[in-house]
Amino acid sequence: MRARPRTQSSIAVSGRTESAWALVNASPDVTAQLQACPALQPGRAVRDTAIVAIVLVDGQVDHTTGLYMLREATRPWQIWCTESTHADLTRGNPILNLLGHYCGVDWRRIALDGAAFTIDGIDGVRWRALPVASKPAPYSPNRESPVPGDNLALVLEDEVTHRSIVYAPGLGEMDENVWEAMQTASCVLVDGTCWTDDELIRLGISRKRAREMGHLPQSGPGGMLEWLDRLPPDTRRVLIHINNTNPILDEDSPERAELDRRGVEVAWDGMEVTL
Amino acid sequence: MRARPRTQSSIAVSGRTESAWALVNASPDVTAQLQACPALQPGRAVRDTAIVAIVLVDGQVDHTTGLYMLREATRPWQIWCTESTHADLTRGNPILNLLGHYCGVDWRRIALDGAAFTIDGIDGVRWRALPVASKPAPYSPNRESPVPGDNLALVLEDEVTHRSIVYAPGLGEMDENVWEAMQTASCVLVDGTCWTDDELIRLGISRKRAREMGHLPQSGPGGMLEWLDRLPPDTRRVLIHINNTNPILDEDSPERAELDRRGVEVAWDGMEVTL
Repeated sequence: MRARPRTQSSIAVSGRTESAWALVNASPDVTAQLQACPALQPGRAVRDTAIVAIVLVDGQVDHTTGLYMLREATRPWQIWCTESTHADLTRGNPILNLLGHYCGVDWRRIALDGAAFTIDGIDGVRWRALPVASKPAPYSPNRESPVPGDNLALVLEDEVTHRSIVYAPGLGEMDENVWEAMQTASCVLVDGTCWTDDELIRLGISRKRAREMGHLPQSGPGGMLEWLDRLPPDTRRVLIHINNTNPILDEDSPERAELDRRGVEVAWDGMEVTL
Repeated sequence: MRARPRTQSSIAVSGRTESAWALVNASPDVTAQLQACPALQPGRAVRDTAIVAIVLVDGQVDHTTGLYMLREATRPWQIWCTESTHADLTRGNPILNLLGHYCGVDWRRIALDGAAFTIDGIDGVRWRALPVASKPAPYSPNRESPVPGDNLALVLEDEVTHRSIVYAPGLGEMDENVWEAMQTASCVLVDGTCWTDDELIRLGISRKRAREMGHLPQSGPGGMLEWLDRLPPDTRRVLIHINNTNPILDEDSPERAELDRRGVEVAWDGMEVTL
């Protein structure tokens, strides 16, 4: 077995200037991620950061716990999320209230009308949020009655070239809007959580199927690999958000070899994508 | 300048058998700490751990955020804390409620009567909790009206030899009970947050003095070094919970040289203390 360790799924996005970044999801590993990425820590002053905004695709623990580590910022964090995620993060897991006792929060609501938005400082990038079918976090008061906006895919588009990236770390089923965005994207960074639907059950660590947890497995009929096969041949295909049970993490595994044959990459810490 | 990076302050305690450990405080760095300490991860099964209980000395973010990373445990965590900390962790920052949606919590109340307690599996260790003067976490509904139990020092005693350790990562002033325990301890692991009272103010990153934040500075009249000087000569003196502004982190600094002269150690990741 040959596998390299990975921290949890987050991306940082810069526009025309590389001195300002938007962090998409704040993983529990954010401290290690910042240390490994000098561009995000220019060190122009004590407690300096090049992160100007944080975008959350949902309220899950793995996407929000890093906010605790970022609480000593010298100004309120500009945090972009939907109304339902904001509600979860001020009730079931009120981390945004908590930040109010430290750096503060400047909430920017992500609307669900599909309209593009821009983030100050991230010049030349147009963002679009696509609601995807999934569930809110387990601690959400709405856990059993999900609403659109609990989980998002993001489309990031270069304003000039119109080349785009689709980012979807949780994709329980292939949604029509997401599929449309994927077909015209230059690069897709998509849900690579599980190889098989019953992966966690067979290992005895959960009673839940991947799909029940909001993650389309890669293999099998209707799986992510079938969808990726249907994309235009020059689309860059990258799996992200890979669970530590997924055999593709073993670089010598037959599953990884299958990805290679299909031209599908496995994201790694420090990977850079340029549009 | 010569300084090595350190993760945040936590300790793990084992008794006569080294296969069971109590984690004292769950730092945001807990993932890295577990990876660096194979004894805590015996790997007898998937998602195995040698940690049988978690003890919290307060409800501060730096002592509790690691609980998020430990939420996938295969059984409820036995969590020891006082009633006031439990209240903060189910209200202002309801992380214990949140764990209820994952592994669950088996709360064990730490009483304030000074009576010794034992933790199942940590054989041969008697624990005592000493309330210390400080403040609850900023998000505590009781922030401005602290009560005894918001912050603790711990005394860990070997049942057979009666040798003991005092652990006090936050000590805003020298409390009589803590001082009594320190004088008979074999080893003291005490608040090393700041060198000077106005350290954060002079660096422009806070308007608060160390003492206001519940941390006795090391230098100056009434500072921690004066207290440590008065301990019996063979007491092992170790500073913990060192802020990244503290000059003692620079191994070439005059402040570090002063510690060396006084026989005071600076804790480091992986440090072991045997009673």
